[in-house]
Amino acid sequence: MNYYGNELSRLIEELSLLPGIGQKTAQRLAFHIIDLPEENVTRLSDAIVRAKKNIRWCRECFTLTDSEVCPICADSRRDHKTIMVVEDSRDLAAYERTGKYNGVYHVLHGAISPMLGIGPNDIRLKELMTRLRQDVDEVIIATNNSLEGETTAMYISKLIKPTGIKCTRIASGVPVGGDLEYIDEVTLLRALDGRTEL
Amino acid sequence: MNYYGNELSRLIEELSLLPGIGQKTAQRLAFHIIDLPEENVTRLSDAIVRAKKNIRWCRECFTLTDSEVCPICADSRRDHKTIMVVEDSRDLAAYERTGKYNGVYHVLHGAISPMLGIGPNDIRLKELMTRLRQDVDEVIIATNNSLEGETTAMYISKLIKPTGIKCTRIASGVPVGGDLEYIDEVTLLRALDGRTEL
Repeated sequence: MNYYGNELSRLIEELSLLPGIGQKTAQRLAFHIIDLPEENVTRLSDAIVRAKKNIRWCRECFTLTDSEVCPICADSRRDHKTIMVVEDSRDLAAYERTGKYNGVYHVLHGAISPMLGIGPNDIRLKELMTRLRQDVDEVIIATNNSLEGETTAMYISKLIKPTGIKCTRIASGVPVGGDLEYIDEVTLLRALDGRTEL
Repeated sequence: MNYYGNELSRLIEELSLLPGIGQKTAQRLAFHIIDLPEENVTRLSDAIVRAKKNIRWCRECFTLTDSEVCPICADSRRDHKTIMVVEDSRDLAAYERTGKYNGVYHVLHGAISPMLGIGPNDIRLKELMTRLRQDVDEVIIATNNSLEGETTAMYISKLIKPTGIKCTRIASGVPVGGDLEYIDEVTLLRALDGRTEL
């Protein structure tokens, strides 16, 4: 129903196409946007267009960035001999937020999934193996703790074994703040298997 | 932290300035946007810029629209002798969604609030009184059921009384689906006061 006229209706519709944005939220956002000063609106629309236009994959680690090489790969203070393998750039961001990891990354852009027909050649695995020809101490596999993530982790570890490079997997267990009562059985068993000495 | 490079970080930041959009949602939206086909991205940014540029107030009812007169005021099939007074265009949209109201509207763009220093001259009240010089049967006051909305309703009804035009207020009571057990006392008393014969 077009009770706002075309322009506002179109904005609401475009916004409601975004993930997790329903009709009501789209309406609230649209009203907020048309109340903003003109320069803020321009900044927002420019950011959208420019991000779309300029974002590409880092030549080294394949994360999304806007230069040839991402800021992390370009940083000489980071440990380039430790590579953390993640499924996508958001996972990289999650580890960066911890502020404690000082190595570099390799972004696969997916995980092996026979169900979805995604094989080893559909993700950036060949590129990882190429990087391993350089001087690398350790590959930390931080794919998701899902069927696909686990499959991918197993596959990668088998590929790496012959090279003699140390290959590790991030721990699976009870999350911090997690109440044992509400944790699923598989996680509880993983946590038990992965117990460490105190 | 700039682990995404400038363009993507800027987009995330701009999106996170929107109301109700936190850092995580902004990140999700940004990744969605850069994954969209170029034409969809252009459509989104165009909608933002055009809405901001072209939206103004309807000459008649002061709702937000993109033409001289909004689609509702321009519609001759609607009953122009019944005017519903609302605080803003979103309230108008809420009643339009019911699909049952066939009159026109008057958007005040606010409510009288001595606390916030908003007086009768700060909202579109004078314009309402001007409209009442034409042939009007009824003014339905649908300001919010808040202190400000009630104050505004009282004020308007006093202004209208001398004109002899019928002036009504939408009912206050228990919302449909509302469980009496969880309804506040004021609403329960309002519902009692407003009881109708069966």
